[in-house]
Amino acid sequence: MIKAGVIGYGYWGPNLARNLAETDGCSLAAVCDTRPDRLAVVERRHPGAKGVFDWKDLVNDPGVDVVAISTPVSTHFEIAMMALRAGKHVLVEKPMAMRVEECERLIEEAERRRLVLMVDHTFVYTPAVRKVRDLVREGLLGDLYYYDSVRVNLGLFQHDVNVIWDLAVHDLAIMDFVLPERPVAVSATGVSHVPGGPENIGYLTMFFSSSLIAHVHVNWLAPVKLRRTLLGGTRKMIVYDDLEPSEKVKVYDRGITLNSNPENVYQLLVGYRSGDMHAPRLDGAEALRIEMQHLVDCIANGRRPMTDGEAGLEVVRLLENGTRSMRERGRPVELEAQKVTV
Amino acid sequence: MIKAGVIGYGYWGPNLARNLAETDGCSLAAVCDTRPDRLAVVERRHPGAKGVFDWKDLVNDPGVDVVAISTPVSTHFEIAMMALRAGKHVLVEKPMAMRVEECERLIEEAERRRLVLMVDHTFVYTPAVRKVRDLVREGLLGDLYYYDSVRVNLGLFQHDVNVIWDLAVHDLAIMDFVLPERPVAVSATGVSHVPGGPENIGYLTMFFSSSLIAHVHVNWLAPVKLRRTLLGGTRKMIVYDDLEPSEKVKVYDRGITLNSNPENVYQLLVGYRSGDMHAPRLDGAEALRIEMQHLVDCIANGRRPMTDGEAGLEVVRLLENGTRSMRERGRPVELEAQKVTV
Amino acid sequence: MIKAGVIGYGYWGPNLARNLAETDGCSLAAVCDTRPDRLAVVERRHPGAKGVFDWKDLVNDPGVDVVAISTPVSTHFEIAMMALRAGKHVLVEKPMAMRVEECERLIEEAERRRLVLMVDHTFVYTPAVRKVRDLVREGLLGDLYYYDSVRVNLGLFQHDVNVIWDLAVHDLAIMDFVLPERPVAVSATGVSHVPGGPENIGYLTMFFSSSLIAHVHVNWLAPVKLRRTLLGGTRKMIVYDDLEPSEKVKVYDRGITLNSNPENVYQLLVGYRSGDMHAPRLDGAEALRIEMQHLVDCIANGRRPMTDGEAGLEVVRLLENGTRSMRERGRPVELEAQKVTV
Amino acid sequence: MIKAGVIGYGYWGPNLARNLAETDGCSLAAVCDTRPDRLAVVERRHPGAKGVFDWKDLVNDPGVDVVAISTPVSTHFEIAMMALRAGKHVLVEKPMAMRVEECERLIEEAERRRLVLMVDHTFVYTPAVRKVRDLVREGLLGDLYYYDSVRVNLGLFQHDVNVIWDLAVHDLAIMDFVLPERPVAVSATGVSHVPGGPENIGYLTMFFSSSLIAHVHVNWLAPVKLRRTLLGGTRKMIVYDDLEPSEKVKVYDRGITLNSNPENVYQLLVGYRSGDMHAPRLDGAEALRIEMQHLVDCIANGRRPMTDGEAGLEVVRLLENGTRSMRERGRPVELEAQKVTV
Repeated sequence: MIKAGVIGYGYWGPNLARNLAETDGCSLAAVCDTRPDRLAVVERRHPGAKGVFDWKDLVNDPGVDVVAISTPVSTHFEIAMMALRAGKHVLVEKPMAMRVEECERLIEEAERRRLVLMVDHTFVYTPAVRKVRDLVREGLLGDLYYYDSVRVNLGLFQHDVNVIWDLAVHDLAIMDFVLPERPVAVSATGVSHVPGGPENIGYLTMFFSSSLIAHVHVNWLAPVKLRRTLLGGTRKMIVYDDLEPSEKVKVYDRGITLNSNPENVYQLLVGYRSGDMHAPRLDGAEALRIEMQHLVDCIANGRRPMTDGEAGLEVVRLLENGTRSMRERGRPVELEAQKVTV
Repeated sequence: MIKAGVIGYGYWGPNLARNLAETDGCSLAAVCDTRPDRLAVVERRHPGAKGVFDWKDLVNDPGVDVVAISTPVSTHFEIAMMALRAGKHVLVEKPMAMRVEECERLIEEAERRRLVLMVDHTFVYTPAVRKVRDLVREGLLGDLYYYDSVRVNLGLFQHDVNVIWDLAVHDLAIMDFVLPERPVAVSATGVSHVPGGPENIGYLTMFFSSSLIAHVHVNWLAPVKLRRTLLGGTRKMIVYDDLEPSEKVKVYDRGITLNSNPENVYQLLVGYRSGDMHAPRLDGAEALRIEMQHLVDCIANGRRPMTDGEAGLEVVRLLENGTRSMRERGRPVELEAQKVTV
Repeated sequence: MIKAGVIGYGYWGPNLARNLAETDGCSLAAVCDTRPDRLAVVERRHPGAKGVFDWKDLVNDPGVDVVAISTPVSTHFEIAMMALRAGKHVLVEKPMAMRVEECERLIEEAERRRLVLMVDHTFVYTPAVRKVRDLVREGLLGDLYYYDSVRVNLGLFQHDVNVIWDLAVHDLAIMDFVLPERPVAVSATGVSHVPGGPENIGYLTMFFSSSLIAHVHVNWLAPVKLRRTLLGGTRKMIVYDDLEPSEKVKVYDRGITLNSNPENVYQLLVGYRSGDMHAPRLDGAEALRIEMQHLVDCIANGRRPMTDGEAGLEVVRLLENGTRSMRERGRPVELEAQKVTV
Repeated sequence: MIKAGVIGYGYWGPNLARNLAETDGCSLAAVCDTRPDRLAVVERRHPGAKGVFDWKDLVNDPGVDVVAISTPVSTHFEIAMMALRAGKHVLVEKPMAMRVEECERLIEEAERRRLVLMVDHTFVYTPAVRKVRDLVREGLLGDLYYYDSVRVNLGLFQHDVNVIWDLAVHDLAIMDFVLPERPVAVSATGVSHVPGGPENIGYLTMFFSSSLIAHVHVNWLAPVKLRRTLLGGTRKMIVYDDLEPSEKVKVYDRGITLNSNPENVYQLLVGYRSGDMHAPRLDGAEALRIEMQHLVDCIANGRRPMTDGEAGLEVVRLLENGTRSMRERGRPVELEAQKVTV
């Protein structure tokens, strides 16, 4: 039985605590929060779990095997590093940390100690995203043209990070899971409308070695909620709309055909193809439940998580460089090759 | 009675011809196309109009007062210039020309000869866009945060211009009409997926002197057709969806309120406001009919069109500089102040 | 070359005239209307067609082979009968006539004279309805459970017929084409909200020998326009939404499975099946063009139209009996077996 | 502090238990279920509540003030009656009982003992339905033309009641709350597609003394989930779509205007009016929480609930007579005046 501790019982922590408590092979041993009223809620909901004020106590608790961290991003590195050094497995909220270099150090520490380091890229565990990945990886879409995502709504303004760290992080995590390549350059634009506040609207273009292009549009100040991704390929195209109640993933047999122009060998003729649409049935499983089961399984069997430190690092690399580009009105930033390889 | 001639009877020319023929105070005198089968169609539909093979004949025809040009973009400048020099008023398809400098010369020529020079920015004459402009100009939205537009579908690949010249041109024309300021810089990204072809997917960010930001996403290779614009302001926000059959313009009483933090004078507290939604009734009039009536009225009364050469030039300036930025992966390009002022 | 005459150039007549004029093997010889301004429009649009004031002149014109009748329903019988007696083929607007007995007499007259008698059930010729019929007839849906249709919008109030004669007529024509059986009884409800006016809202339930049930909801006073049909079967189910721009027909692999209860042989256990959704590509052809070509083909080759007098009669039988039931608040009315068989 | 007991911990019981436990002024004292595994769940979630096997023990428990009954409909009467006789207040699931006469006896018993008898018509407590009622009652819609509701989806087949008892019950409860009159007659149609099973598709028309008409369409075998109500009046019209995430209630300024025909005093001219659409902001409160607070308030202050026994009886009267009409293919059934008045 793996014993879990949760640090941070604010917006997302309760979901982690509840799911860890209900996962087979796992029990909730302790929850940490600095606010007494939050600990009172913990006590009512999880009478079997210890309430802890100081996260260092939880990290050093011998009765805890894995630490789940759902605190502000700026604290991730320190807490995760101390947990690893105390010999605990770690599940950390996204984004993994504030800087690429911090991610690298966490990966190295976990490697050295042979501990599981997992990043909570929840969307990766949804039936819809797993289906999209399967379709892409099986070659159903052919070569990819583009990945285009819109994720906008009204609120929730963050004070410590800008909108791409808050919302685009989901798309970058999905891209890391779904796409067969990683970006080589990024150009981002965005502005802040609250004096002194972080950027609340952002546009992120990512370039690849191939002609694949990716774009993410995020906004905290939109009048409506939109969650829609277009994914185009040479053979088929996908519309993934996370707000659709039943058909979240639609596969379109649409595209173009290219033929040489018999009259001009240097020119290609573009033809259109418009066939059926198909919405595959999606598994009804809850993402967080699947993810926690995967965490427990990785710890028990010494396996590497699907959303490991590398995935977390890749996302932070894009956020860090994207923010840099955004501050210079879209000046493109080349992405260095990843240092840590496994 | 103003006598009109149309040059180019391909995709859009028939609409111009039909509407010019049916507009009060105007008659269709001549139509030019180099393809005999197109002229045969003209003859059947408009038995009273002359069929002309050579556009120079039409331009020099003393029986023609105004020339409507719906030919490929690369020919706009030459035809329009010769028509102005022949003393004709001119209506030219969008984009007005291939280069800013060409637009400037056309504007100067028309000014000197006191001829009407109008650009066919059709969307400006739709009831929906006029309603959006009224709402913005009356201050209902407050100060503007952003203008965000998506215009994607499958096809129609153009061979001579890229997708922003073909699709973003609509949004730029609308922005020129609706927004109270003009962009000062542009950053654009995009790629071509057809070897040797123009960019078929493009993203255009425009910066302003204020914190207003504008973004346009266009794509010829999307599986679904989307035409949706979000317009956010300090007081209200608009969703304008041109594919909605009845409620094209929705006004949301949503946004944020900023208050000083009593505990920290340097920090603003963000609150949310979520009120009613309102979809104003739109006039049912057809845009092209209104536009042709406006053209006839400008010619008859020596008035300046709403979509004059300046508007056309502004759009071309953005297209030209946007394409430049796109070729450099988003490097921002400053927009010089407009030379021609009236 | 078949020469067509059109009687009634109001709302629908112009569509018939235009399509007859453009159909291969057919020419528009004459158009009749009692209003001089309508005949003036005819003259401008169809300079080759004769303008006729008195429909009897058109019916007796030796230069006319087929008469298309788009006049008020109450006049259909007299005009169609006189046309048949004058040896003309006939295309008549839906509903075919005001009474079953009138339909029967027209069918007999056409039979005796070996003339084509076709009813303009336009929806039957749309790609969507033909696809639905194919899916049903191929057995893809299994045994049918129900046919449920909603057809509501604001207006257009008719003065001579109630809303089921005006709107449900479309659904009854589609049902006649798509379903493998014909109703044996009908129960209808509805009311009038305009004093002295015909019923403007109606609900029509139709029963069959099997457990199939059909229902049509029509309304002239709805705030929104809806055109949606659900079609359920033991194997698959269809949603046909005529207002969808691209995916009008969606096929759902959903339903129930029935198993004997091992503990109770008299009880069935109901299980649920929820699989993929599939939207087949639809042919882009225009319905009225296909229909006119079919008319010309039937006349030229002595074939029976898909929407013959029998189909028209069946629809009128349901309208007549449905109206009777409606006047008695839903009292069910048995439908006699059809008299005329072919 | 009011002490609540819940009988039946299946699908809905857990929601009642949770909300009763969290309502101010109320505590959860006991939960009854005959299945040991359900009681085990109760023990884990509500360690402070007694687990009871026999409902009679709960009904007679002196530590219980109010009994919430969420068992199969056929058991409602017996349990509720015994609870009232034991001096307990009662909240009973909808439909209130199997027969009108049972409802009447429960009402009488509660009256005599001055106990609160409330029926769990949950939709009545939603912000959307309360808004619709306010709009109707304030006269915003003018005189009502119709109430038309569709409530269809795949499953959940019930074995003891047909689909109108399971699904139409919601609409009848809403109608009872929203409409200014009560039906005087009902005509219903429907069939069963499972041999020996209850009707799984149903259509219910209700007539009123005025020209108002109401219709409810329910179906357990639909491929898609629909929850949409149209409500038309002389002044405005409402579309209430419970599946809309944000704008559940839309008010349309559409309709007709009636004028006397100056040429024919016996005829009315129908004109159309098409104005703005307006979606009022809805309160975000959870219906069940509001309802439980209302229950506690009624008990504490001796007030009559909004959804009292009368409301429950009215709904059962329509279900009972609707089922009777359905068995006779829509034969209309007159509704006797209500016996119990308060």
